[in-house]
Amino acid sequence: MDYTVAMQRAIALSQKGLGKTSPNPIVGAVIVNSDGQIIAEGFHDRMSSPDHAEVVALKAAGVKAKGATMVVTLEPCNHTGATGPCSRAIADAGISKVVYAVKDPNKKAAGGAQALRDQGVQVESGVLESDAAYANRAWLTKTEKSRPFFTWKVATTLDGKVAAADGTSKWISNEKSRNDVQILRRQSDAIMVGTNTVITDDPHLIPRGDFPGFIANPLRVVCGEQQLPPTSKVFDEAATTLLVKTKDLNNLIEELNKTGVNHVLVEAGPTLAIAMLIQGLLDELVIYQAPSILGQGKSFVTDFGATNIKDLLALDHIATEVLDGDVKSTYALGKAK
Amino acid sequence: MDYTVAMQRAIALSQKGLGKTSPNPIVGAVIVNSDGQIIAEGFHDRMSSPDHAEVVALKAAGVKAKGATMVVTLEPCNHTGATGPCSRAIADAGISKVVYAVKDPNKKAAGGAQALRDQGVQVESGVLESDAAYANRAWLTKTEKSRPFFTWKVATTLDGKVAAADGTSKWISNEKSRNDVQILRRQSDAIMVGTNTVITDDPHLIPRGDFPGFIANPLRVVCGEQQLPPTSKVFDEAATTLLVKTKDLNNLIEELNKTGVNHVLVEAGPTLAIAMLIQGLLDELVIYQAPSILGQGKSFVTDFGATNIKDLLALDHIATEVLDGDVKSTYALGKAK
Repeated sequence: MDYTVAMQRAIALSQKGLGKTSPNPIVGAVIVNSDGQIIAEGFHDRMSSPDHAEVVALKAAGVKAKGATMVVTLEPCNHTGATGPCSRAIADAGISKVVYAVKDPNKKAAGGAQALRDQGVQVESGVLESDAAYANRAWLTKTEKSRPFFTWKVATTLDGKVAAADGTSKWISNEKSRNDVQILRRQSDAIMVGTNTVITDDPHLIPRGDFPGFIANPLRVVCGEQQLPPTSKVFDEAATTLLVKTKDLNNLIEELNKTGVNHVLVEAGPTLAIAMLIQGLLDELVIYQAPSILGQGKSFVTDFGATNIKDLLALDHIATEVLDGDVKSTYALGKAK
Repeated sequence: MDYTVAMQRAIALSQKGLGKTSPNPIVGAVIVNSDGQIIAEGFHDRMSSPDHAEVVALKAAGVKAKGATMVVTLEPCNHTGATGPCSRAIADAGISKVVYAVKDPNKKAAGGAQALRDQGVQVESGVLESDAAYANRAWLTKTEKSRPFFTWKVATTLDGKVAAADGTSKWISNEKSRNDVQILRRQSDAIMVGTNTVITDDPHLIPRGDFPGFIANPLRVVCGEQQLPPTSKVFDEAATTLLVKTKDLNNLIEELNKTGVNHVLVEAGPTLAIAMLIQGLLDELVIYQAPSILGQGKSFVTDFGATNIKDLLALDHIATEVLDGDVKSTYALGKAK
């Protein structure tokens, strides 16, 4: 049987967990009967329950799980943490086959596939692996690099300006783009700026809008050594704010790792962003380009030592969409040479 | 009957004339029978024949034109120039109805619709008017503003750089984008740069690649007062080159108008481009944005006096497409405030 459509659904379900699961991965699971019909669904929503996606789906399926196939975005865990091992719950429920997309790289939880086989469950892997890995890139990066995944968000003119020469910047991007940013914020575990941005722009760093099912806002992180006005909006009660009074990005990573966040949205100005870029810490750029030109002003990026065309920082294009005339593009970032 | 599909075909045909018709408009025509089937097609190809699109289609239809309907992108002319008036040819061929998209704003040739009615031909207008007008925007601008239409082409990094700090720029955009530029060049009547670009980059300004049916290359135009090396590639035999030794853009327009070009592709650096921008002479921006960042270097645009966010030059987004990871966007430009 072909499990592509079921896995697409499982990936879509997993993404409902974005912003809700850290330090855990996002995971989606569906249970299909012998006709290939989906009879139950689940995703990990750590904000409301410790249950893993597999267990949510098994509970939804009830006795119908017996003899059915589970299609799940990540190799089921073989680990007792807040919950028991999914591998056992799956076998106990009588699931006859498990199809997963991405192997669990986490040593503590891995081994699920083998444990399932040992209990007589058939196992197939690798279905839509790259799509599922892309959706889960924050947690996978965290697991593989022992640091959060950083998405750098900027809103610029076509000539790369984020503010006019006199510092004014409201608004460069349009309403649709600014609403889209709220989704990026909501799906992140933390939103980070440098001290300079707090002093200059006094951002709130809270997702605006109605997002049902979220019981807490992302962590706010301010990195840098400048003194902040105590009346800054980031110090209100809307979310926890972590101050990391350092320019040493290794310290920053240490502090972020203590919080358990997987995905950090970087809304920093060029100084912090370039420092992170040079150290290879920015994984992704989301750029909203307004249909406008300023000619002068503050750029989203500053000199990082590239003097010849061969020094340019090459990115990998991931996606582009048009939002009411703004062009939103997403790129994977490498390390600046 | 609905003539939308026939008009879409007529517009597509008209665009085969891009780069071939100046100082005339591009025009496409199809002849449909009473079942709505296309029985003949034509477009104006001034490089190979003086015949207007309507006459090309009538010749293709022969006796089948009698009683049929002609669908044409522009109001048929009522003027004897290199050829006789299309209004008469259409009536003489027995066409019973003419459907056109855009009214001819050219006083000399207008009146075609009335002349057709006077000869007993039914006339319907305005079908896909905005699409046809967009395709013919160069000639319409020329007719309405008494100057060519200027498309400004740039290839930049995401931070708006066209060259690194040391002046190197090969290549910022990828091969697919560079091939796409050849189509822009081929569909233009002239390709223009400033003297500084000739001195710095020594461009050839000739469409590269195989474009059947073109018997001459676009005019090359170099505007500015700097002395040019006599060995510059623009002085070779591949095309005519017009030197306009002035910084006065009114003189430039005068000289360009003498040549009859409708559509000028501007591949100039920021100095000439900004001067044109300030004078409201740039109609359109085509920007190829490579997935790269330089941080410093030469921008495609320089200071034009915008100091506050309210001074930004607002463009209208027309289209975006992804070319192997480069993002190509087209914008309509207004006049800088």
